[in-house]
Amino acid sequence: MNTSRLQAMDAWQLSPLLTRRELKAEDLVRACLERIAEREGTVHAFTQLDPDAALATARALDAGPVRGLLHGLPMGVKDLFDTADFATTYGSAVYDGYRPRADASPVALCREAGAVVLGKTVSTEFAYFTPGPTRNPHNTAHTPGGSSSGSAAAVADNMLPLALGTQTAGSIIRPAAYCGVVGFKPSLGRVTSGGVKSLSPTMDIVGGFGRSVRDVGLLGAVLTGDARLSGWSEAAPMRIGFFQTPSWPQADDDVQRAWAQATRLLSAQAKDCQDVVTPDNFADLIQLQKDVMTFEMARALSHERIHHRERLSAPLNSLLDDGMAMSSERHAEQLRTVAHWRHRIDALFERHDVLLTPSTTGIAPEGTATGDPLFCRSWSILGLPSVHLPFATGQKGLPVGLQLVGRFGQDHQLLAAAQWVHERLKE
Amino acid sequence: MNTSRLQAMDAWQLSPLLTRRELKAEDLVRACLERIAEREGTVHAFTQLDPDAALATARALDAGPVRGLLHGLPMGVKDLFDTADFATTYGSAVYDGYRPRADASPVALCREAGAVVLGKTVSTEFAYFTPGPTRNPHNTAHTPGGSSSGSAAAVADNMLPLALGTQTAGSIIRPAAYCGVVGFKPSLGRVTSGGVKSLSPTMDIVGGFGRSVRDVGLLGAVLTGDARLSGWSEAAPMRIGFFQTPSWPQADDDVQRAWAQATRLLSAQAKDCQDVVTPDNFADLIQLQKDVMTFEMARALSHERIHHRERLSAPLNSLLDDGMAMSSERHAEQLRTVAHWRHRIDALFERHDVLLTPSTTGIAPEGTATGDPLFCRSWSILGLPSVHLPFATGQKGLPVGLQLVGRFGQDHQLLAAAQWVHERLKE
Repeated sequence: MNTSRLQAMDAWQLSPLLTRRELKAEDLVRACLERIAEREGTVHAFTQLDPDAALATARALDAGPVRGLLHGLPMGVKDLFDTADFATTYGSAVYDGYRPRADASPVALCREAGAVVLGKTVSTEFAYFTPGPTRNPHNTAHTPGGSSSGSAAAVADNMLPLALGTQTAGSIIRPAAYCGVVGFKPSLGRVTSGGVKSLSPTMDIVGGFGRSVRDVGLLGAVLTGDARLSGWSEAAPMRIGFFQTPSWPQADDDVQRAWAQATRLLSAQAKDCQDVVTPDNFADLIQLQKDVMTFEMARALSHERIHHRERLSAPLNSLLDDGMAMSSERHAEQLRTVAHWRHRIDALFERHDVLLTPSTTGIAPEGTATGDPLFCRSWSILGLPSVHLPFATGQKGLPVGLQLVGRFGQDHQLLAAAQWVHERLKE
Repeated sequence: MNTSRLQAMDAWQLSPLLTRRELKAEDLVRACLERIAEREGTVHAFTQLDPDAALATARALDAGPVRGLLHGLPMGVKDLFDTADFATTYGSAVYDGYRPRADASPVALCREAGAVVLGKTVSTEFAYFTPGPTRNPHNTAHTPGGSSSGSAAAVADNMLPLALGTQTAGSIIRPAAYCGVVGFKPSLGRVTSGGVKSLSPTMDIVGGFGRSVRDVGLLGAVLTGDARLSGWSEAAPMRIGFFQTPSWPQADDDVQRAWAQATRLLSAQAKDCQDVVTPDNFADLIQLQKDVMTFEMARALSHERIHHRERLSAPLNSLLDDGMAMSSERHAEQLRTVAHWRHRIDALFERHDVLLTPSTTGIAPEGTATGDPLFCRSWSILGLPSVHLPFATGQKGLPVGLQLVGRFGQDHQLLAAAQWVHERLKE
């Protein structure tokens, strides 16, 4: 197989070749390293690479038994996850050269399943808004989005088939949309978060990126331990709720065109498509997510705020000051509101199996600012699983897509629906 | 003031002396260190102490401005929290000599408020059941309880006025009960958990120990950022729900006597005491808590399970194996059930302001096994705030008490009620 074909293949296509020993993990790792050598100077997706260690791991996998669902698959790890064999900076100079004692739990699970970690990928500063050096591989004048910038860009640019990310506001779905890859944020609480730098413990969630729904399903199956995420049968006929949300006026022409195209195609083919009746006060979730995140980040980053203020960016210091000035009484009331919402939102899924809704306000903005997580905030605070599906092209040839949101805990149904929907939208 | 009087004083009594400079933090730290030197060989509460550093910190506080609510107060930190200046082992040989880069967020907040960390206190192995060397200071043939063993024992033995702990099943309330101190577990999500070893991210909560309700209020105010936790006015007349729970048959004679005494005294003095009508299926919460914790711990400790199996205790390896064999599909359903319960339990507090309920099945058992968290599990998975109140003496002179449970987010009302109740029970 030629190298560029290998580089472009999906994980689910590579996986059977690897487990049947028709493809060596070593050769696949070499192909990825070649692509990285070619493109990293332009894309800047990585904070650190260890080609020799990756090749040694690949050779050991080739020589040993099949390890699991990710056997031999090269993977990138957002630099917000602790790793025992790579420095871990959380996107900040405060942690220059820091070498944790252990792998974060999700990294350990992926390695146990046979993944080969090639390197750490760029995160914005503590997964907030101050960008790293990563560029959008489709057009380097544009942002890849954040905070999982390097993971999304590396997968989009065929450097790797899979990468880990995290989302608190929009840090998986938004870079997936800007880079034109599939991003998957599982249901809140289903994926262990030990050893992942904590921002907002009531919302932080681990997920990842691939170039197909099946690929994020493989990764999701390992992260959650739920084999159904990588083993759907035919997607059942489904009821799709079309949900523009109260933020719809912020969606630009590209997103509106993608919406029109998707709703037309799906209405013609899905069993039951209906507009979602907006739940009362749904618009309040945006500010609620912002407030809870700001309050919690200021406290999560206490050590850094107190001891390393001069090494934090001005926007981050400003956020931390805002957060420390916020009322804990109000935070407690907001957590109650969140608990009621998480209960209440379930009713929406008695009428719809999945919701189709925007991922972003538009294409990746020009410059380095990582864009607006507006359309992701509600789903983050509700803790519902979501998947970004890239299927269209907007201005300047940059990718556009939409997200599907599923019922809490029904991640496998969401992925089966996403696969079915994605097939129809890509046609 | 003589040394043993200083050692026995509550934090809320010491605090005004420290801030008015009538007592030097240095002298208080010396008094605590004296007590530790006297008793540590018997109690074994600490994994590590740094008297010189503590004295230097105390002198700096004496020489500088008043820092905050914990100004000059000596504190112990459970060895499940990262600390930049002490080795951190999480109660396991796997982490021998490990020195994290940063303080866990709650430690940073306490230090920012002026606390002087004297040392790290013994945790059971990764806060599960395998005990450390700590003994119950009331009777060294008995357990101090776990997992926050050293923190509860050190406070009970007047080595320190305050200490940090964590609870996932019963790791604050149970050792508080066995050692006869006040333990406070805040509402889930109110206290930042960054840098605290993760066991079960959907339930882990940071709290602490003191010898009075006012003392845990001081600590709670710093941890949550809610000043109301240390500044109640007179406790309002309140409605107390008496809730034996379906586990009542497991309560032994000591607990039953304490219950009879408390309900008699409170019925005579509180405005409105009623027996709680047990919510349907409430008894299911025990198994639910066990299942969720087992599933999540196995994944949280992935790195240790995969790479250090030979250095984990047999009971922990067995738990981790059980957890890895559990169904993720079932875990997802259980998280849905938890979300519904957290919403639904709120209705109970329309009839009662606080609930009086057992903390433990009895006094601290003889031997090293850390006892049964049975009466704590439901409140842990529900995420409700609770306080253990010691007020009676059981067999062999060991302490007995009960816990009060509050409405979600109403930690300040819980503490005000606990203060009022504790005054009446101690009479």
